[in-house]
Amino acid sequence: MLNETNVKLGQVRSSIRELFEYGKKRKAEIGEENVFDFSLGNPSVPAPEDVKKALIDIIGNTDPVELHGYTSAQGDFSVRNSVAEELNSKFATSLTADCIYMTCGASASLTVTLNALLNKGDEVIVFAPYFPEYRVFCEHAGGKIVTIDCDNSFQPDLDKFAKALNGKTKAVIINSPNNPSGVIYGEDTIKKIVALIKERENDIYIISDEPYRELVYSEAKIPFIMNYYKRSIVCYSYSKSLSLPGERIGYIAVNNEAEDFADIYAGICGAGRALGFVCAPALFQRLVSKCRGQTADISVYKANRDRLSKKLTEYGFAFAKPDGAFYLFLKAPEGGARAFAERAKEYEILVVAGNDFGCGEFVRISYCVSPEMIERSLPAFKKLAQSYKK
Amino acid sequence: MLNETNVKLGQVRSSIRELFEYGKKRKAEIGEENVFDFSLGNPSVPAPEDVKKALIDIIGNTDPVELHGYTSAQGDFSVRNSVAEELNSKFATSLTADCIYMTCGASASLTVTLNALLNKGDEVIVFAPYFPEYRVFCEHAGGKIVTIDCDNSFQPDLDKFAKALNGKTKAVIINSPNNPSGVIYGEDTIKKIVALIKERENDIYIISDEPYRELVYSEAKIPFIMNYYKRSIVCYSYSKSLSLPGERIGYIAVNNEAEDFADIYAGICGAGRALGFVCAPALFQRLVSKCRGQTADISVYKANRDRLSKKLTEYGFAFAKPDGAFYLFLKAPEGGARAFAERAKEYEILVVAGNDFGCGEFVRISYCVSPEMIERSLPAFKKLAQSYKK
Repeated sequence: MLNETNVKLGQVRSSIRELFEYGKKRKAEIGEENVFDFSLGNPSVPAPEDVKKALIDIIGNTDPVELHGYTSAQGDFSVRNSVAEELNSKFATSLTADCIYMTCGASASLTVTLNALLNKGDEVIVFAPYFPEYRVFCEHAGGKIVTIDCDNSFQPDLDKFAKALNGKTKAVIINSPNNPSGVIYGEDTIKKIVALIKERENDIYIISDEPYRELVYSEAKIPFIMNYYKRSIVCYSYSKSLSLPGERIGYIAVNNEAEDFADIYAGICGAGRALGFVCAPALFQRLVSKCRGQTADISVYKANRDRLSKKLTEYGFAFAKPDGAFYLFLKAPEGGARAFAERAKEYEILVVAGNDFGCGEFVRISYCVSPEMIERSLPAFKKLAQSYKK
Repeated sequence: MLNETNVKLGQVRSSIRELFEYGKKRKAEIGEENVFDFSLGNPSVPAPEDVKKALIDIIGNTDPVELHGYTSAQGDFSVRNSVAEELNSKFATSLTADCIYMTCGASASLTVTLNALLNKGDEVIVFAPYFPEYRVFCEHAGGKIVTIDCDNSFQPDLDKFAKALNGKTKAVIINSPNNPSGVIYGEDTIKKIVALIKERENDIYIISDEPYRELVYSEAKIPFIMNYYKRSIVCYSYSKSLSLPGERIGYIAVNNEAEDFADIYAGICGAGRALGFVCAPALFQRLVSKCRGQTADISVYKANRDRLSKKLTEYGFAFAKPDGAFYLFLKAPEGGARAFAERAKEYEILVVAGNDFGCGEFVRISYCVSPEMIERSLPAFKKLAQSYKK
């Protein structure tokens, strides 16, 4: 009688959440310091000190009726203008405030975009490994995800991609730096993806999901999709860059070079309305505008990545070196990811099996944790590695 | 190619927004003080001073990683517990934290609830006059709204309601104090609605949409639906009670006496996930918990209501006296609501034609404005009334 799809979705916790809850229980049993919880992508680095100052300043010095009032559904004009200016100065685009739609974070950016684009039965191509909620979001919007396997470097397999493109393909989601692999798709890859789409002369949209855009630890440049393809939409969130995941603030940027730009933007406004997003949280709209260009102290994640990469390699584990985000995608030595994740638990290490990400041979390690926990976890990782050598 | 429904929804601004934009333009032309804008339900009374204090206190004294981190998808446990306790103490219910799901405001409460309940083709009964977005929200969730006319007192027509109930009826939405009429449905009405539903022995859900619960200006009691019907869900928002409409914070409370309580709650969790609501904004979850039981200074709205009611009656206008919310639903003297709203514009008065609310003979006056604007508007209302007597 109820909506079965949503009831089931609510009953089955995502495997990540499941593990997180197990971790909480285990910490209560044996002490927080003895559990090595790498399950969640919850930033451990605080928001920059300026965020606190800016919040107190805004709250202290703005008329509360204006401050807490509705903004326009797309977001406050000056905030959208500031986002457009920032993107233009970084990426040489010519966006205006009317290309930007402020959202309640990355998931909202994606659901609103997908509901603007998809009709029943449309296909959305995603490259494995991929964020598992893509499937949920696409299916709610009436679409179907088509997954493309990756090679061991976690780069898209372009032959398979070429074969997957067809008349039903409505959109392609690119997520770089990638959750869960941490790899970056280089300019060459983006150019090839675009070329393959253009060969088909299809009205395909590229959605670039980039909450990790600023979290890059090498010289690698992240190509900005609008510089390569007109029919493109960027989904962004400040959750990771400013360490504000609970506050739900992000945006959608629509490329105004797309022929059907006006319709895409209208579809986004309509989808936002139909899904019940009246406007993005007003205080945090102002906050991100005031803290434009800032990030949390990302050097901590880089140090974590370097330390963990070095030691895991030393212990004999295999993985592609992550250049961004705060994930490391480790090859399960034998017997698949689920068995490995279960065995890791015996050593109090919590990692997420990659099955839901479309890669059943890998586990995700979220290293957005304290450097101290990484140090404490090393002997456990060593023992875990040794357990496979017996 | 794009999703036509959402593109159209985004192209056609709601008539309320349309009028609001006209008002902005007109104010720029002839001066803010010369336009009498009664179009929007945007609170004019500031959030209580304690909101500011509490925000600064929370921001100043909470570890930022904890403060701005993800809460659980349902909301922070202690916040949900506080909501449950407040409802229990007010309404003698036995709710627990696990009956509460924190949301991004009233619209989100409704879309999440409807997506939990509805299957394709299900009918949702609403009583005219009704909030126009009910139609948008129901249709996105695959349902269909069935509207029941009201009499001139804006109370539900129960004979028509009885006839509308059928095997496809999945839910009934009650909105009291009502937007746009401001009337309250008394205990008698609620009891009759419940009795009619029970006669059908149908698995019908009652959704009580009550963002105006605290905005009551008479001795009238607002019956709490859970005290009358088990299969009931309350959708709440702090937008109006705490004057925080832009911050998007509210909740869904599911009656734990419903036989299928666990499934309803799971459906809500699943729908929230599918729509892209990861959690309600974390800072404002804490804020509403800290400011529990407080409201903005509602006496201003009561004074506005009294003054406006007295003068409009004096000028010969007809309407049902509003006991709550901050709307007055005025009968258009002749020729329908749209013509009246257009004529009102000639006197620089902006009111919303009731057609989208399901009542083409009435206009909505939002009196959540400054008392000064009401005073300034009175000569214009007088002239408008006189224009019909010529």
